[in-house]
Amino acid sequence: MKLLRLYDILAQELENVREVFAAELLDDDAVMADLVEHLGKFRGKMLRPMLVLLTGKAGGRILRDHYILAAVAEMVHMASLVHDDVLDEAEIRRRGSTINVLHGNEAAVMLGDWLISRAFHLCASLESQTATRLMAATAATVCRGELLQLYYRGFFELSEETYFKIIDRKTAAMIASCCYLGAWAAGAEDTTCRALEAYGRQTGMAFQIMDDLLDLTGQIHTAGKSLRRDLAQGKTTLPLIHYFRQATHQQIQAIKVALPSADDGIFDDIVEQLRSAGSLDYARRRAEMFIQTAHEYLDVPMEEDIRLLLIDLADAIVSE
Amino acid sequence: MKLLRLYDILAQELENVREVFAAELLDDDAVMADLVEHLGKFRGKMLRPMLVLLTGKAGGRILRDHYILAAVAEMVHMASLVHDDVLDEAEIRRRGSTINVLHGNEAAVMLGDWLISRAFHLCASLESQTATRLMAATAATVCRGELLQLYYRGFFELSEETYFKIIDRKTAAMIASCCYLGAWAAGAEDTTCRALEAYGRQTGMAFQIMDDLLDLTGQIHTAGKSLRRDLAQGKTTLPLIHYFRQATHQQIQAIKVALPSADDGIFDDIVEQLRSAGSLDYARRRAEMFIQTAHEYLDVPMEEDIRLLLIDLADAIVSE
Repeated sequence: MKLLRLYDILAQELENVREVFAAELLDDDAVMADLVEHLGKFRGKMLRPMLVLLTGKAGGRILRDHYILAAVAEMVHMASLVHDDVLDEAEIRRRGSTINVLHGNEAAVMLGDWLISRAFHLCASLESQTATRLMAATAATVCRGELLQLYYRGFFELSEETYFKIIDRKTAAMIASCCYLGAWAAGAEDTTCRALEAYGRQTGMAFQIMDDLLDLTGQIHTAGKSLRRDLAQGKTTLPLIHYFRQATHQQIQAIKVALPSADDGIFDDIVEQLRSAGSLDYARRRAEMFIQTAHEYLDVPMEEDIRLLLIDLADAIVSE
Repeated sequence: MKLLRLYDILAQELENVREVFAAELLDDDAVMADLVEHLGKFRGKMLRPMLVLLTGKAGGRILRDHYILAAVAEMVHMASLVHDDVLDEAEIRRRGSTINVLHGNEAAVMLGDWLISRAFHLCASLESQTATRLMAATAATVCRGELLQLYYRGFFELSEETYFKIIDRKTAAMIASCCYLGAWAAGAEDTTCRALEAYGRQTGMAFQIMDDLLDLTGQIHTAGKSLRRDLAQGKTTLPLIHYFRQATHQQIQAIKVALPSADDGIFDDIVEQLRSAGSLDYARRRAEMFIQTAHEYLDVPMEEDIRLLLIDLADAIVSE
């Protein structure tokens, strides 16, 4: 993602977000301070804070509430990353006991819970309950998405419709809420808030499709995370759905048989098959379509340079 | 615990709490509805809702906000029970893969997160942010307690002071907040709210000591949960702290060597040693002292029959 220009433009405001974030997680207990330091490795691209800030500018101007909302969104997101590190039984058996680098599953669970609690504590410092209520509802929706995905784990006949429902809940909903709240906190009119929410939803859909694509095609050193995890975990993402739709019965069976005990070599073969079948291109095209629709939702009154930044951000998601 | 009379007296009001609780967790998605049904097994003693209700009566009268606060407290508590079911690597290796009856660790994590999010969503339906802010801060404190306990896992030289710090955070803090909020929502004066908060804290300390004692001495069929889990997990609770304080070096070494690979027979032996050394009695006496102090905090203006119910509830915690 080419977000460098945006980081530059939002540098001071993102710094304010980080300050609010750090202040909320400050803990005088040595054990806690140590754990908070470990959280550094979960620091992300700050996509959600950037969207709160940009939609804040689109809806009016940045106020202290925006820094709070942006920090809350990042905290809830970080909690989900920490909880994503909690491994299931199968994975532990497969990968050995050294993988959870923190202090085991239980610490990861509690640390994530602590982050969620601090996030809502921070959110409740706002004057109105509106943001807390929307943030909490959206955090619940994210969990519903993750649970739906777990339910369909290992189910390779997943329909595109169900896949879109999953990623809408687990990713697009929160990005949409960030955009809504950014505009809302700036005092924007409801039509503007709703339009930006829709922009966020489309952008979020594209973001998750690209993230799933990266899991298949990315290079470890650039992605900065373990790859082929979706395949290993039996998560059927868009390229696989496309592939299965047009593959022969024999090809489908071959993948189904290979996956449960697949190693890197087999993963490479599968990705090559997906590439040849045009399934990787298909997923990318679908992401680009969502971004195209996202652009259209920006047709509400806002300063032109902010509109261009929102377009830039959306475009960056589908850029190489 | 002899809470039967209290269940009778609060029957209608507890039913109202359950209704608010169930309405918040209603989900039209079949996958979610199925998971919510599974939550039934985590249904507890409703101690926290009872305290919200009783302190509400002590502080004035029960309003709709009390049902909401009581449901929120129970939801946060249930989330912690669900997350308590997430096993660590060692436990999974020891107990095999069948123990997590739901759908694996990851589903347990997400379901707990969903509960926490729904809890804060419900709490944010109150007019003021005060309760959300206190509930979120307290939920964070609970996590700090759990993390401190994890940090000291396997550390048998735990001081009584640190043990009390752990149970204050992981249990007493939330029970104290329930009592505070019950009185607060009824419009009680700050001194009354603070006194009932202190009553809750002392009661909570006693409750956790007794719960830890039950883990050692309880019978599976009456406790309704797996026992000796603290010993198996290397959690040093009050009887062990007392025992280690007066045992010979040889006795201490014997337990340290036996514990990591202990089976039921060895656990029985250890419990017998604790009993002979008076360590079980010691823990019980400490719990009774906390209850004694809890009584003293009830010396604020309230209806006499409510005061007696609060005394009853505290006494029930240390009753056989």
